[in-house]
Amino acid sequence: MVVVLKQNVSPSEVAEINRRLEGFGFSPRLLGKRRNNIVIDIDIEPDVLKGLDLQTLPWVERVVPLNNPFKLASREVRGENSVVRVGRAAFGDGSVTLIAGPCAVESRKQLLEAARLAAIGGAKVLRGGAFKPRTSPYSFQGLELEGLKLLTEAAAETGLATVTEVVDERSLEMALDYVDMVQVGARNMQNFQLLRAVGRVEKPVLLKRGMSATVKEWLMAAEYIMSEGNEDIVLCERGIRTFEQQYMRNTLDLSVVPLVKQLSHLPVIVDPSHATGRRDLIIPMARAAVAAGADGLIVEMHPRPDEALCDGKQSLSPDEFGQLSRDIEMVSRALGRVF
Amino acid sequence: MVVVLKQNVSPSEVAEINRRLEGFGFSPRLLGKRRNNIVIDIDIEPDVLKGLDLQTLPWVERVVPLNNPFKLASREVRGENSVVRVGRAAFGDGSVTLIAGPCAVESRKQLLEAARLAAIGGAKVLRGGAFKPRTSPYSFQGLELEGLKLLTEAAAETGLATVTEVVDERSLEMALDYVDMVQVGARNMQNFQLLRAVGRVEKPVLLKRGMSATVKEWLMAAEYIMSEGNEDIVLCERGIRTFEQQYMRNTLDLSVVPLVKQLSHLPVIVDPSHATGRRDLIIPMARAAVAAGADGLIVEMHPRPDEALCDGKQSLSPDEFGQLSRDIEMVSRALGRVF
Amino acid sequence: MVVVLKQNVSPSEVAEINRRLEGFGFSPRLLGKRRNNIVIDIDIEPDVLKGLDLQTLPWVERVVPLNNPFKLASREVRGENSVVRVGRAAFGDGSVTLIAGPCAVESRKQLLEAARLAAIGGAKVLRGGAFKPRTSPYSFQGLELEGLKLLTEAAAETGLATVTEVVDERSLEMALDYVDMVQVGARNMQNFQLLRAVGRVEKPVLLKRGMSATVKEWLMAAEYIMSEGNEDIVLCERGIRTFEQQYMRNTLDLSVVPLVKQLSHLPVIVDPSHATGRRDLIIPMARAAVAAGADGLIVEMHPRPDEALCDGKQSLSPDEFGQLSRDIEMVSRALGRVF
Amino acid sequence: MVVVLKQNVSPSEVAEINRRLEGFGFSPRLLGKRRNNIVIDIDIEPDVLKGLDLQTLPWVERVVPLNNPFKLASREVRGENSVVRVGRAAFGDGSVTLIAGPCAVESRKQLLEAARLAAIGGAKVLRGGAFKPRTSPYSFQGLELEGLKLLTEAAAETGLATVTEVVDERSLEMALDYVDMVQVGARNMQNFQLLRAVGRVEKPVLLKRGMSATVKEWLMAAEYIMSEGNEDIVLCERGIRTFEQQYMRNTLDLSVVPLVKQLSHLPVIVDPSHATGRRDLIIPMARAAVAAGADGLIVEMHPRPDEALCDGKQSLSPDEFGQLSRDIEMVSRALGRVF
Repeated sequence: MVVVLKQNVSPSEVAEINRRLEGFGFSPRLLGKRRNNIVIDIDIEPDVLKGLDLQTLPWVERVVPLNNPFKLASREVRGENSVVRVGRAAFGDGSVTLIAGPCAVESRKQLLEAARLAAIGGAKVLRGGAFKPRTSPYSFQGLELEGLKLLTEAAAETGLATVTEVVDERSLEMALDYVDMVQVGARNMQNFQLLRAVGRVEKPVLLKRGMSATVKEWLMAAEYIMSEGNEDIVLCERGIRTFEQQYMRNTLDLSVVPLVKQLSHLPVIVDPSHATGRRDLIIPMARAAVAAGADGLIVEMHPRPDEALCDGKQSLSPDEFGQLSRDIEMVSRALGRVF
Repeated sequence: MVVVLKQNVSPSEVAEINRRLEGFGFSPRLLGKRRNNIVIDIDIEPDVLKGLDLQTLPWVERVVPLNNPFKLASREVRGENSVVRVGRAAFGDGSVTLIAGPCAVESRKQLLEAARLAAIGGAKVLRGGAFKPRTSPYSFQGLELEGLKLLTEAAAETGLATVTEVVDERSLEMALDYVDMVQVGARNMQNFQLLRAVGRVEKPVLLKRGMSATVKEWLMAAEYIMSEGNEDIVLCERGIRTFEQQYMRNTLDLSVVPLVKQLSHLPVIVDPSHATGRRDLIIPMARAAVAAGADGLIVEMHPRPDEALCDGKQSLSPDEFGQLSRDIEMVSRALGRVF
Repeated sequence: MVVVLKQNVSPSEVAEINRRLEGFGFSPRLLGKRRNNIVIDIDIEPDVLKGLDLQTLPWVERVVPLNNPFKLASREVRGENSVVRVGRAAFGDGSVTLIAGPCAVESRKQLLEAARLAAIGGAKVLRGGAFKPRTSPYSFQGLELEGLKLLTEAAAETGLATVTEVVDERSLEMALDYVDMVQVGARNMQNFQLLRAVGRVEKPVLLKRGMSATVKEWLMAAEYIMSEGNEDIVLCERGIRTFEQQYMRNTLDLSVVPLVKQLSHLPVIVDPSHATGRRDLIIPMARAAVAAGADGLIVEMHPRPDEALCDGKQSLSPDEFGQLSRDIEMVSRALGRVF
Repeated sequence: MVVVLKQNVSPSEVAEINRRLEGFGFSPRLLGKRRNNIVIDIDIEPDVLKGLDLQTLPWVERVVPLNNPFKLASREVRGENSVVRVGRAAFGDGSVTLIAGPCAVESRKQLLEAARLAAIGGAKVLRGGAFKPRTSPYSFQGLELEGLKLLTEAAAETGLATVTEVVDERSLEMALDYVDMVQVGARNMQNFQLLRAVGRVEKPVLLKRGMSATVKEWLMAAEYIMSEGNEDIVLCERGIRTFEQQYMRNTLDLSVVPLVKQLSHLPVIVDPSHATGRRDLIIPMARAAVAAGADGLIVEMHPRPDEALCDGKQSLSPDEFGQLSRDIEMVSRALGRVF
């Protein structure tokens, strides 16, 4: 059971309501703020609740019976969609928001070219990896600080916002000075220390689904971040690991888009690049994601995919990116959405 | 390596070309017709091939180097899309074709109501199970012959074509007299005897993907049917089995739509009802399927879902079906496709 | 809720008890015999039951509250282990019983050699495929009738019992005259028509787990067979399909051995050959299966694996088979079991 | 291709061989030491190699053609089994080594009781979580420093070595002063920063397989650690995530035991507690693990499982732990192994 307090209750009022709940025999637990509302969790059976008439307590806005283990992230606690703003971009306001850029920041030339293409194609956010979590310790691991600086430069020139993956507290600290949004990658979705760390900063977080994470575990990862105070989370489906591995890198689980929008108020976007691992499937799956109701897309694009230092096979060429942009536009408009 | 002969070669000419190929030291294998072209399979390395100049042999239309184990079903053997016609409906001609109806035929009243709703909503084919493969031997197993007769009656009244699942040679034989298309269900996708049996009849086949079938195995199942002579196959993605089982029945693997259209010339449709198992996810996933390029959809719908004898949770109500129809229309039109 | 009647109740007594149960307002359903005990299923809540005192009814042996959808197959309905006898072999009596032989019957010479090796190595049952369900329609499909005759001949010479896979009613009918046990393969585990057909014959059935079948579905497949009257079922775990596909064909799910023995009274054996698909993993996994409590093993073995027409990579050579035999013996003895 | 140098080559000799390899046109990469041998990686095709006769170069012990992406961890680079010593315990020397203890350190009383039981049952290493990675931010997260101190105390009293999970650099640093072995958990198997960090310390590492990690990814995680200099790694299979979730928490993938021992020289143990999540399956699966060739086991045990703060359902009671110990002993002895 979750008790959502009215906005602007004072700390002493919170203390007072806590005392009263303890008076009923509960062990109330302050979950943190949910968009200006303080939320208190208590263990109580729904039928016990009826007799208590908690709703009539001063400062209580709503009492929500909740079966989910995720609380701050759950739709029941907050009815309207959360809107997460990153620079000019907004996720969750009904529009279709595109994040684009190369897998890794490789050079000034590469990134600036990519950023210009992204801007022309209607992207609002530039992606680019400065810290690359690679399966092999012998693969290219990213330009680190130099990559972050190039992202800032590309953002300044094009007006795009920027997002980059962080992999530990050190890279997070470095990234905070340079980018507008930080990403927690699929392999770190249950790196709870990292989740807590991004929960304590004031940048929006792009939270990718782990490659074998259930929807519940994914929303619990968001709950970890929110429990530390940061509520600006954009969820991102990027394909799950299944038995089909001959033709595609992962299996894009697109049904989670409408599902998550029922379970949670958080925006959800789709990464068709990592999901399929094939350049030729990205455009149709991007169209499908928009049609399924995704709040946006993140795609890999490279001025010259054949020269990419990582993930070239799944990076769109400039021409393909133009096609993607036109297709998204078409589907968005048909569904009355702005791209 | 596959040799596609010109159309209208005579049996004696086929015998002659076989002799010549044997003269080169091959063991040619006649695979059967592929839309009026006879196809011959030979084991040969591409570099050996160059010296032979098979293309200059009389009656040879094309020589196709082929790495796939599926041959008649492969895009390389037939470049253009195959169009499968079922009554007024066509699959594979660029249009979006809707199959709708109840999980099981339950009664005359139920089926006729469903058929009328289907027709109004733009469906071209009526689905309805007369032989139900159920996990439990104690569950309702279908009306069998009576169900087939009701399908015929509903078709006559509404002008819809009909499709029903067959589960063995006996049900296939019964269904042939009553329906326009036969379905091989997910659980029977590797029931090779059944595949061979539907390969010998002259009705189009709706071939569902097995719940843990790779794309290759699915296309090999189509190859089984085609190897017996029946080339009128519509593939159907209906969700695969993954680790996520709390919120959804299966995981809709929508990326196979553009993938299969690259690997094969056969049309492919999507079943969002079985894929998700949740009424509230069907409409967004139907939109997504069309946006991904599916040649059509098959959805479960019931005049009164709460009274359904099977799969009520995933059956659309009449109102929801109307919404589905409008949404498909919208997305189809945006992509320049006819629904 | 399931009511197990005493042994040797007469048909008229069954009719009488049915009438009484109907008198209480139930719709009793006769599930068939369970090892000489007739079992009746009724829908009733446990707390309603208490008032009725069904246990005091004449002819009632036990009343079993049952949450499983499988009933005749469930441990609750029959406490002791079922013992399935096939020739000299017994499954479920605590001994470790070995089935061995080639993937496919290829020739008289091959099969006789394999049978002699099997007998020397302590196998009690000879396996050999006469009807091969192959992924490709162009692969070797088995010797059919000739293969069955060779199995009979090899059995006569070596004193082994025989088992072969059946794939439809026609092959089942043919096999009945020649072999001692029929196998339903993984791909047909939910071919309910075939399950019913083997449920009507009087031969023991080896029921392989489907490659993505849950334990519940597997036991429901056994229930299908039992609901038709055949209770002589040996379950066989043969590996499931998972994301790991680089090094092994399937993932051997050995934990189902102790699990199934808790859920059901039916014997369960293990097929390490199909599970791993690698000759070099079969012996350790065979040892592990015995240590986990399996009632037996089925392994592929070939006099000359390199010449095998199918599955040569997973067929043990005569020497390896000798090693397997010694290893099984060693582990069995340590656990106080007879091999 | 990997070049293994002779032991005791000097830095200047390494520089010299590097120059020579560069003289041949290669870009040699120093991988680090492998048990006193320096290993150099060069990109070269096997047929090019033959002409070079690298084996005759001074200081070269062996030249190993290597297809695996893991190098230091691969069996080809080191033929004999690596033996990892933790206190009195050894992993990889042919013996069966048992790690036991509670999921989490909860209190002095609980841990000391558990430690005494572990020692009596033949365990050589005490496990106990001080930093618990929990799915929910609201669950018990471990006693941290206090837990580490209790582990040290319990070790001092019983003579057991200790292992505890670390979750980031901070917990690693804390743990180094208190325990004999650090564990990287399944959720952190691809937390590359953590892998690198444990690669730089001089404690043995217990590396659990990620819940959807392929064998290749698992060995690459070991390679990350080894590439930083720490070669004392014990691999641990703890169950993978599959579609079967009704009866078991994970699917124990026991076949990886003999597989990994072929691919790598590192020892591999099995965790039947997390793999099955059911107390009643742990003993049979522990027996099976030993029979499959595992170098040891790690099991959860609690003086009073019903009071456990986490994972009580999968914790053995003292009596069950005694049974486990006797069963392991029996199977070990039958296979000529010391427990």
